[in-house]
Amino acid sequence: MPELRKDPTTETWVVISQERSKRPSDFKLPKETKAASAGCPFCYGNEGKTPPEVYAAGPSQRQPNSPGWSVRVVPNKFPALRLEEWPPNGGVEVGGFELAAKMPGFGAHEVLVESPNHYATLASHSQEHLDLVLKALSSRCHDLAGDRRMRYIQIFKNWGHVAGASLEHTHLQLILLPRTPRVVAHKLRIAQSYFQRHGLCLYCDLIKFEGDHGERIIEETDHFLVFAPYASRFPFETWILPKKHQHSFGQLTDEQSFDLSGVLKRLVGHLELSFEDLPYNLIWQTAPYEPGHESYYHWHLELLPRLTTIAGFELGSGYYINPTAPEVAAGSLREAALGKASMGANHRKGD
Amino acid sequence: MPELRKDPTTETWVVISQERSKRPSDFKLPKETKAASAGCPFCYGNEGKTPPEVYAAGPSQRQPNSPGWSVRVVPNKFPALRLEEWPPNGGVEVGGFELAAKMPGFGAHEVLVESPNHYATLASHSQEHLDLVLKALSSRCHDLAGDRRMRYIQIFKNWGHVAGASLEHTHLQLILLPRTPRVVAHKLRIAQSYFQRHGLCLYCDLIKFEGDHGERIIEETDHFLVFAPYASRFPFETWILPKKHQHSFGQLTDEQSFDLSGVLKRLVGHLELSFEDLPYNLIWQTAPYEPGHESYYHWHLELLPRLTTIAGFELGSGYYINPTAPEVAAGSLREAALGKASMGANHRKGD
Repeated sequence: MPELRKDPTTETWVVISQERSKRPSDFKLPKETKAASAGCPFCYGNEGKTPPEVYAAGPSQRQPNSPGWSVRVVPNKFPALRLEEWPPNGGVEVGGFELAAKMPGFGAHEVLVESPNHYATLASHSQEHLDLVLKALSSRCHDLAGDRRMRYIQIFKNWGHVAGASLEHTHLQLILLPRTPRVVAHKLRIAQSYFQRHGLCLYCDLIKFEGDHGERIIEETDHFLVFAPYASRFPFETWILPKKHQHSFGQLTDEQSFDLSGVLKRLVGHLELSFEDLPYNLIWQTAPYEPGHESYYHWHLELLPRLTTIAGFELGSGYYINPTAPEVAAGSLREAALGKASMGANHRKGD
Repeated sequence: MPELRKDPTTETWVVISQERSKRPSDFKLPKETKAASAGCPFCYGNEGKTPPEVYAAGPSQRQPNSPGWSVRVVPNKFPALRLEEWPPNGGVEVGGFELAAKMPGFGAHEVLVESPNHYATLASHSQEHLDLVLKALSSRCHDLAGDRRMRYIQIFKNWGHVAGASLEHTHLQLILLPRTPRVVAHKLRIAQSYFQRHGLCLYCDLIKFEGDHGERIIEETDHFLVFAPYASRFPFETWILPKKHQHSFGQLTDEQSFDLSGVLKRLVGHLELSFEDLPYNLIWQTAPYEPGHESYYHWHLELLPRLTTIAGFELGSGYYINPTAPEVAAGSLREAALGKASMGANHRKGD
């Protein structure tokens, strides 16, 4: 019998087909072909193909927009939104009609190139390098947050064509928004209501709840809990929550940053071991800039493998159908971790 | 400059990149290969491969579950939800925890096979045949609505692999749900609020508004307005609204049904002329079973072409990015209609 489960953070119902739960080998994935790197705007020597960089990690003697960088952030050449002159009315909705409300597309859209290596993945970076990536992200978030006309920064990664990546060279994206997104506003309302009823943070309670149950946990580190959420919308959906209550990604400490780098490297590495060419989205969920959400919101990351299709039922109803129970997904990823560890041990034995 | 537009029915913001608005020829679509029909469970002679039919249109002397039908409805062999014995507690949420609310997967999942022709599309049916399809749909909706433990019926069509179709033989799907879906509840709240403020139906007002402007209209018939919505999430997104105020698809009259058949046939036909192998979802949006929504809700159909990917930004924020302004899409579909009409005229001339 299928089961309906409700995500406590979004109140979204998910149909979990436990009896036909799919393991990694049950999914067929299209083979993604990597294009040659010659013309890639994110490779060394092609710095002129992107707009001028706004951030780069690299040796101090390096000239901007030239090779030698290890992490580089540039404005998106085809931005969804732009930071240009602010409209005189301060960006309130124009157009006049309730039925056709609009505003100019003010905002910003940046691309964080994680590495000069065209063939790198999130898992192939060293933990130290991934830490540089997260520090670059924090730095850009901090700078962009200075613009008080803006409300929210959406950070995300599209990996693989199916997940929306148009360039294959590994990168993250940042979109600065003049309005708090609907998805975030919805999660804030639910977290606030939970706090009013229980006097506790919904996500802190979730950490305790998942810790007590254990079956959906993928990894626990000093600073993070990594688990398959109870009402996973996607097979192998994984959430990463800081164990300490923090409402905003901007509060990430150096210690947490290094720990998170290891978490991401291992998680994506185990997914790569389980699936060849897995398309996925990695999504940051954090509080908007305005104060007031400190007590009840809790930033987190969502990794959404794109093994299933968002089809008519999902788009029409908001329900999701997931053929892999999160307990199965978590177990499978824990096994992958053990496999890798023992493979590593064997390898060392053979040395 | 990109533009942010707000959908008045969902309050979803959409980024419309007008300046790089894409016309049909700008989209690259993967070629979909049609498998042979020999083993297809929806073809004549394979009736035994599906669960026994619950509805069929065909000659009166035909034996159930044998060839000869023109439209056939069967339970989904792999149902997302099932109608089995109802739980003693009447289906209230079980599991006890606010953080892990669940209920058994009670509901129903049916497949409406539109035609015995394996190579048919929604546009290749005759208008008379499509009318039979809509009548079959109405009949199933009526029968399923008799189950008072259920709240909503989600009707949809997935066409093409990218849009989630796992079987290529043209079909519609019905999923009966024990809870009003989140997407529908959200739209109901917004329509109710509009009604409270204006004393008018939001969708009736939208019909007037679009009629006054004209640039987003694709077609207007006696009974329906077909238009590209102002804040289209997808390129070539099209809505079909009954011009008469009706809250539920169940109120469809015979006259409307025949008219809607022509509307669907032409719309999909013009999309087929514009794109080869266009994947799309067709989604019914109607009121839930319980009374109370009659004055402010207005059923409608949404056709969502899947030319763009729902990626990290969309999943994280709920914003959509659409590279084709609805005005451009509507213009392009009006041209396709004229092209077809004149081609037809030329053809007649040549006869």
